[in-house]
Parts: sequence; C-alpha cells; structure tokens
Amino acid sequence: MEFRPILMIIGVLTAILGCSMFLPAIADALVGNDDWIVFVTSGLITTLLGAGTWAASFGHDQSLNARQAFFMTAIIWVVLAVFGALPFYWAGINLSYTDAFFESMSGLTTTGATVISGLDTLPPGILLWRSLLQWFGGLGIIVMAVAVLPMLQIGGMQMFKAEAFDTAEKILPRAAQIASNMTTIYITLTFACAVCYWAAGMGLFDAIAHSMTTVATGGFSTRDGSIASFGSAVIDYIAVSFMILGALPFLIYVKMVRGNLSSLWRDSQVRAFLLVLGAVTLVAIIVQYADDIARGEVAFRHAIFSVTSVMTGTGYATTDYGSWGGIAISLFFIITFIGGCAGSTSCGIKIFRFQVLFLDLKQHIKQILYPSGVFVKRYNGQIISDTVSASVMSFIFLYFFFFIILALLLSLTGLDSLTAFSGAATAISNVGPGLGDIIGPSGNFGPLSDLSKWLIAIGMIVGRLEIFTVLVLFLPRFWRG
Amino acid sequence: MEFRPILMIIGVLTAILGCSMFLPAIADALVGNDDWIVFVTSGLITTLLGAGTWAASFGHDQSLNARQAFFMTAIIWVVLAVFGALPFYWAGINLSYTDAFFESMSGLTTTGATVISGLDTLPPGILLWRSLLQWFGGLGIIVMAVAVLPMLQIGGMQMFKAEAFDTAEKILPRAAQIASNMTTIYITLTFACAVCYWAAGMGLFDAIAHSMTTVATGGFSTRDGSIASFGSAVIDYIAVSFMILGALPFLIYVKMVRGNLSSLWRDSQVRAFLLVLGAVTLVAIIVQYADDIARGEVAFRHAIFSVTSVMTGTGYATTDYGSWGGIAISLFFIITFIGGCAGSTSCGIKIFRFQVLFLDLKQHIKQILYPSGVFVKRYNGQIISDTVSASVMSFIFLYFFFFIILALLLSLTGLDSLTAFSGAATAISNVGPGLGDIIGPSGNFGPLSDLSKWLIAIGMIVGRLEIFTVLVLFLPRFWRG
Repeated sequence: MEFRPILMIIGVLTAILGCSMFLPAIADALVGNDDWIVFVTSGLITTLLGAGTWAASFGHDQSLNARQAFFMTAIIWVVLAVFGALPFYWAGINLSYTDAFFESMSGLTTTGATVISGLDTLPPGILLWRSLLQWFGGLGIIVMAVAVLPMLQIGGMQMFKAEAFDTAEKILPRAAQIASNMTTIYITLTFACAVCYWAAGMGLFDAIAHSMTTVATGGFSTRDGSIASFGSAVIDYIAVSFMILGALPFLIYVKMVRGNLSSLWRDSQVRAFLLVLGAVTLVAIIVQYADDIARGEVAFRHAIFSVTSVMTGTGYATTDYGSWGGIAISLFFIITFIGGCAGSTSCGIKIFRFQVLFLDLKQHIKQILYPSGVFVKRYNGQIISDTVSASVMSFIFLYFFFFIILALLLSLTGLDSLTAFSGAATAISNVGPGLGDIIGPSGNFGPLSDLSKWLIAIGMIVGRLEIFTVLVLFLPRFWRG
Repeated sequence: MEFRPILMIIGVLTAILGCSMFLPAIADALVGNDDWIVFVTSGLITTLLGAGTWAASFGHDQSLNARQAFFMTAIIWVVLAVFGALPFYWAGINLSYTDAFFESMSGLTTTGATVISGLDTLPPGILLWRSLLQWFGGLGIIVMAVAVLPMLQIGGMQMFKAEAFDTAEKILPRAAQIASNMTTIYITLTFACAVCYWAAGMGLFDAIAHSMTTVATGGFSTRDGSIASFGSAVIDYIAVSFMILGALPFLIYVKMVRGNLSSLWRDSQVRAFLLVLGAVTLVAIIVQYADDIARGEVAFRHAIFSVTSVMTGTGYATTDYGSWGGIAISLFFIITFIGGCAGSTSCGIKIFRFQVLFLDLKQHIKQILYPSGVFVKRYNGQIISDTVSASVMSFIFLYFFFFIILALLLSLTGLDSLTAFSGAATAISNVGPGLGDIIGPSGNFGPLSDLSKWLIAIGMIVGRLEIFTVLVLFLPRFWRG
C-alpha cells in the first residue's frame, strides 16, 4: 500500500488540530492561568509534526483507492486523539495519559463521556479544548459521511452516494464542494446556537463552549451540573432545538440553502426521526405524571430534553432520568442504539437502517404469504436493492455483536453487569453517560480501571467509524492486497 | 378459508390429549388421591369434545394449503393449552384459570416456567400431568419442524426441506413417514432416559416424570429443588446427556437409524452447538475457580449442567448460577437466545441461524473489500441462497423486536427491569426460569400479576412457533385471501 497520500492528509489535519490549540492558550492567558504554556507547547509540537509529515509526503498522487481510504479513516482518528490528549496530560489537572487519551477520544468521537470531575473550577483553556475537540469531531463525521463512507459501501451508506452527488453542480469536484458547503452550514449553526445561548443569559464563554458541543451532539459541558446548572427553561429549549438540528442530515441543509426548502420535511429519515423522538417523549411525559415526578411544562421539558439528548447521543442532562422507572430506562437504552440520521453529527445505528430493516421485514412477511410474488422496496422514492438490504442487516448485526463482545470484556475487568452493558452501549453509540452509580448521568468514568478505559475508548472509535471501517483493517486479506 | 380440515386435525389431537389425562387419573387413584376424579372428568370432556369435532368435520379434503397450515399451527397450541389447563384448574391446588393456563402453556411449549410452589407435597397426578404436557409439546415441536415449518418457509427453515425429504423412501408419504420415525426415536430416547434415571437411584415415578421433561428439554421437575434434590452426580450427568440428545436434530437420528452413523458428527449444526456448549462451560468453570465457588469435578458438573440446561432451554437447576458473577450471567443471558439445533425439542433462535448469519457477515466483509467479487455461501455442503439469508436475518430481527416489545410491556405492568427483560427472554426462548428474586432459578412466576402471566404465556407460544407463524395471523392481508 502506498502510504504517502495518507500521510499527507493526516499531516494537514494534525497541523490544523495543532493550530487550534492556540485558542485555549489565549483563553488561559486572558485569565492569567499558567496552562497557556501547555497549550502553546502542545500546539507547536502538534503543528510542527503535522506540517512536517505533510511536507515530507507532499506532491504525490492525491487520489485514494478504497483500501487507502479505509486505512486513512481509521488511523486519522487515532492520531488526532493521541495529539489531542497532550494538553490534558500536561495541564495541571493530574490526568494519567490513559485518562487524557480517553478524554480526547471521547471528545473527537463526540461521545461526551468524561473522566474529569470538578468542571466548575477548571480553567477556561481545558474547558474550551474539550469543546473544540467535539466540534472538530462533529465536523469530521459529517464530512466523512458524504466523502468516504458511501464509497466504502459501509452498512448501506451507498444509498446516499447517488443522492449526495446529484445535488452538486457538475463543475467542481463534487464531494469537496459538498463538504465545503456542509462546513459553512456547520459553522453557521454553531454561531447561531452560541448567539441564542448568549441572548438567553449564558455567559459568552459558556455560550461558545456549549454551542460547539450542542451542534456536534457531543455533550461536554463547562459545568458539573451540565445544562441543568443554568436553570433556564429557554436555554433548555435552545439546546433541544440545536441538538435536533445537529442530528438531521446535513446534506438536506445543503439542498435547502440551494432553494429546495421542502426537502427537509419530504425526507423519510427526518420524519421517522421526529416521529420516534415524539413518541418516546410522550411516554416519558406519561411516566412522570404516573409517578408524580413532574407535571405540565416541566414534565414536557425534562422529557423532550432527556429523550433528545440520549437519542442524538449528546449526553447533556437536566434531570436524573434514571429515577423514571423501568419502562423509561428500557426505552432510553433502546433509543441509545437508534441514534439520529445518517449524515448528521449524531451517533448510533441511525434511523435509516431501521427503516430499511422494517421494509425488509415487511417484504419478507409478504413473501411468506405469497411465495411466488415479487415485491419492491422503496425508500425516499428510490428502489432499495437486496445488496443494500444485506449491507444494512449485516451492519446492525455486527453492531450488536461488537456491543456484546465489548460488554463481556468490560464484565471481565470486574465491572458489574449494568455498568459493563451500559458502558459498552454508551461507548459504541457515542452517547456519553451510562447507567448505574459509577458511570450514570451523575457519575463519571474516572473510577474505572485503565483497561476498562482503553476498552471503552476502542468502543468509541469503532462505533463512530461504523464498525466495518475498523474491522477490515484486522483482516489478513486486507493487507494481502 | 375452509376450516373443516383444520378442525379435523385439532379434533384428533385434542382427543389424544384427553385420553392421556387418564394416566394421571390412574396415578392419583393408586395413591388414593381424590384428584383422580378431576382427571377423569377433564379427560372425558376433552376426549368427547375432540372426538366430536373430528367426527363433525370428517371426510373432507385433508390436504392443507399454506394459509390453513399457518392457522392450524397457531390455533392448535392454544386449544391444547386451554384443555390442558382444566386439571390444574379443578384439582385441589387452588390455581386461578390464569395460573392453570400459564402452567399448561408453559408445559406444552416446553418452557418450564411454573406458578406452582411446594411440588414436594403435590399428589402424583398433577406432577405426571405437568411432565406429560411437556412430553407432548416436545413431540409436537419436532414433528412441526419437519412437517410444517419448512413448507411455511419460516426463518430459513426451508433449508431443511429438501434434506428432510431426501432421506425418505419414495413410496410412503414422506413427511408422515419421517414424523412417525421421529416419534419412535423420541419414545425410545424417553424410555432410555427413564431407565438410566431409575438405575441411578431415582424412584420409578420420578424417573418417568423426569425422563419426559428431560428429552423434551422442558424442565418441569417433581421436586422444588429440581434435579439438585436427588444429590447424585450420576443423575446430573444423565440429565446433561439426555438434554443434549433432545437438543440435537431428530432428523439426524432418523438417518443414523437407517445406517448413516457418521451423519451426526458431519452435521455442521451439531458441531457448532457442541462447540458453543463446550466454550461456555469452560468459562463457567474458570469463573467458579476464580471466585472460589467450587473446584474439580463439582465445578465441571455444575458448569456443564447449568450451561446445558440454559442453552437447551430446559431450565433444570443444580446450583444457583445467579451467584457466578457478571460475566457468567451475561453469557447465560446470551445462550438463552442461541438455543439448540433446528428440528430438536430445544428452543431459542437456533444454532443454524447464527451460522447462516456469520456466513452472511463474512460474505459482506469480503464484498466490502472486493466490491465486484462474487462469493458463494455454503452450509453443510449446500449453497445458501440470498432468500434463505434474508429469511434468517428477518427472523432474528423479529425475534429481538418481539423480545423488546414484550419486555417493555412487562415493564409497563410494574415489573423491575431485570424481571421484565429476563422474563421476556425466558418466555420467548422457552427456557423457564428468569433472573432476579421473583422469577430467578429459586423463585417462581406465582407472584406476578395476571396481566404479566398472560403476556408471558403469549411470549411462550410466539417463541415456540417461531414468531412468523403467529404474526401472519394478525395481518389483514392474511384474511383477505
């Protein structure tokens, strides 16, 4: 395999990550915190190594074949997480490198699981760096979803290939143009979110930090109490709105900007996502009424906030939904796996895969009744081939296999069943908090063993890269050429 | 739909069930228990109603089309469970009809979940009736697996169609002949099991009662302490052996009787089943050593017994494996779903479906690496069509959907998450005991609400009839013709 075009891309992105470390350096310098030196040092090391790698591999053929694309996609997240961990490791917050790497990977994959407690007393640099990692991660994932995954035919993502390229004009390289449109929209949404938070009474720094982790559906907060600590219903609703916007397909925003305003509502995935979100919210409201936990607007707000936060994989909290009883916990566990829309910053199996699955089951049941009938499956008006169906089903199975194996490995490290299973689920679905006393919404991942942390970090990247992308690298066949 | 051929078959089977009620009547009469009157009354009612239905619908076309076969398969288990419940309801053990129906359905579906406590003091009639129900259920399921399910193309069972018919001579109606061969083998195995138990020191009555529920992988015992109460290592190993024999495909026994002795070991499903059984047993041994619970032969015996009992869906207990820690509980929960071989008395998703699934995943991963390659899947030497793959995948998904819906409904009745989820799993996989204080290996289903009991009873029949068979009846399309 020719590694130089891969190294070139990795070099550029590492250098960009390095440059972004100067932002937290400025934040710390402004408040007179010594950590600014840590960020400047990390920034210089990362930028220079990145730029050096880029320069050393410059000028070679820039197009990647599928094998190179697989390798690059997987390796780039690891490399960025390794460098992103440097400020955490060196700053004055006493993290081991395991903890620093965990935090960095949790950020880049927009998971939002944290090993750090006492956020309220942290200097602004570290807090901003956590938000920036999630913001970059969210951007990376929406670009990857149009530029890389459809080409690699991962889990039915080939469905979005034709669509992605149909919307672009024919002159510029299409994927690059769409990616650049998406980046503009992503920045605009983040800016709008920050303005809303600020207007609703958040401090400027908190507004910026939270806007980045809201649109990225990441979930890192600047406060131990998460969004709840602002005690504002308006802020809760702003968070809900932008989490939902982050969980919708960014391609549709590109279409809308180009004048096709109805495409949002005509998209079958968007409607299904909102339908599930609404239905689970309704159950969460009923549960709160039934157990006399809350009523009226408060019940509605806590319900829609918690459901949106879990389903989009954000992981913000305004209330301890762990106390809402069996049915709520079960439903929350299920929507953890469902996730948002393909091509969004959100995580999980994604809505469209369940839609394809239901179409398959429907077809199969018809086939049982009429063994000689011929039935066609349509999704968003397109015919779904059996290959796409098989891709989707294989993906979902592999997702659950990986979940079970990760849960069993976590059990083996000595964790109780609830922590092991919810930890595996929250890692692979990039949600953030798990269930139980240790890693539940009010706990954090700090007390876990190093081994558990590495396993969960692996779960995060495998989940974020849609399983297959990582899996193929471990096949001897892949390396044989 | 023409109901008369269906009524004829239901009539015959109901009459047979009714006649069999005279056996517990004899058992009770011998010990002078008044319940013999209950069994005679129930037997007369059931036999007369069955024979009457048969006579009234006699002489019509006896062949069934697919729609009639679906309807008959689903309805027959309900009808037999309704009549099978009569002795429980009328006997002097104070069961409501809900409890009686639950016990009857649990018996016929070979689940083995019970609402009755204090087995040690029960008269022999009731104990024998519980065993007989499981024995009939086990026989019903192996006959159904060759005679009905392949024709209905349920969840990949069509794979076993050609094979089933290839082994028979061409002269007699093949399915009928194979079914009759299987019945003979089933009776022989039960007899052999009873003799072994008896020779190992069980009383004659206990030996007969347990032999019926061992070969049927049902799990009803005559003692509150289940097999453990006999305190004999030899009896434990006999139970393990016959549970395994009950969980292997009975078609293979037919082949072996016809001289093809190597077919057992050459069957890929049998090898996979034994491999998984061995691997989980090994883990269960290691866990017992690690936590210093037991060592040597005792650890081995408790491990293989518990693993076999759970994986085959029998539900006998010799030790409380609930105390073996997180990894063991997780693995036991997983093998609950795996189950035994297709065409056996055991339950769950069945080994062959996981084998087909792995072949599909393997093919899919190859396809990602070589998008234009053509790959063929083979199982037991046969090529697997994409239709079979789709059937298998649809089946597994529907299984888990049904599991989740059932678990959520059970949560809604007020059960805690562990009871609701393990209750749904144990019902749909026809295992018997669940997890937790209420329905765990040392508890029983008596304390649950009536609604929960009906839901679990529905879970049992839907799981036993491989989901689709029941599901199609609820489609308007099915009734439109």
